[in-house]
Amino acid sequence: MENERLRKQIDFILEADKEKNIFRQTHLSGHGRRENDAEHAWHMAMMVYLLKEHANEKFDVAKAMMMALIHDIVEIDAGDTYAYDSEALETQKEREAQAAKRIFGLLPDDQRDELKSLFEEFEAGETPEAGFVRAMDNFQPLLLNESNNGGDWIEHGVRKTQVMNRQAKTKSGSNIIWDYTEKIIEKNVKLGNIKED
Amino acid sequence: MENERLRKQIDFILEADKEKNIFRQTHLSGHGRRENDAEHAWHMAMMVYLLKEHANEKFDVAKAMMMALIHDIVEIDAGDTYAYDSEALETQKEREAQAAKRIFGLLPDDQRDELKSLFEEFEAGETPEAGFVRAMDNFQPLLLNESNNGGDWIEHGVRKTQVMNRQAKTKSGSNIIWDYTEKIIEKNVKLGNIKED
Repeated sequence: MENERLRKQIDFILEADKEKNIFRQTHLSGHGRRENDAEHAWHMAMMVYLLKEHANEKFDVAKAMMMALIHDIVEIDAGDTYAYDSEALETQKEREAQAAKRIFGLLPDDQRDELKSLFEEFEAGETPEAGFVRAMDNFQPLLLNESNNGGDWIEHGVRKTQVMNRQAKTKSGSNIIWDYTEKIIEKNVKLGNIKED
Repeated sequence: MENERLRKQIDFILEADKEKNIFRQTHLSGHGRRENDAEHAWHMAMMVYLLKEHANEKFDVAKAMMMALIHDIVEIDAGDTYAYDSEALETQKEREAQAAKRIFGLLPDDQRDELKSLFEEFEAGETPEAGFVRAMDNFQPLLLNESNNGGDWIEHGVRKTQVMNRQAKTKSGSNIIWDYTEKIIEKNVKLGNIKED
């Protein structure tokens, strides 16, 4: 039956809807509420397209956008792990691998394999697409946080080394975005929003 | 200065953030809260990629995904116009044209022109990209509403002709999605969730 394939695709699409209920630590601009995974991914995919000229290497734009759109989908089962929560970070890989198996498993086999690969490629961070999408994964909350006078850094008492370590991945995707990132971090250290080590 | 271009791109990216505060009539699956524009666009862009095999014509996937991501951005100024609100529909075009001018005007000139064209192409609905993105713009809330036992149709007392007229655009993007759409509509008319004319 032709529609069995479409039915599986729809099952995945409806499962993905749950990302709209997974809230992150980042707050929306204008000192808004916390952001959810779907909103974060929407913003990142738009940034992939708009900022692609700043990437270190040419990449496949549609592939990178889809990678951005689904990169957090495993959090439907595994929850959001805050970038500076070291305890949760330890079990994150295993929890997310299980989730990937279940959620991508809703799709027809070829698309299950394609999206699972795309997710794993993002995690490994070694291709030009993954490098740039990971840069956007850092840069998007940095921009929101900067627009809110560093509120998220202040709330969590984050230190400069922590921010630098997390943001360092950005360099392999885009030197230009990295330069801009460093300026934002320096500014926020001077302002006392990020703690000196 | 190199960063003036990046600064303009960031201004647009931060302006776009406001879409996360524009709520639609559609409710999230699981009888959830109302959905916002950013979430809707995220879902649509993912659907463009996943369902592209069902399109009537081949299309540029990255272009169509970006079209999906930004198609509602004018609502930051113009607000969401419900598909069955005939009074608001009359002034919608003019309000949205003004908004497009201001919001896309934040970008560097070449990207201002590119995104404005992309938005106008979506509105005109005549290219393969626009046809398929418009199909997704119909199909995404239809799937959520169907998963919620037609709650949005019931709440607004929507009639079959209204749903058919609105969804009819889907046909020019995808006959396969249209067939599926018709089945959902028929089922919901039989269940009394959509009023017979």
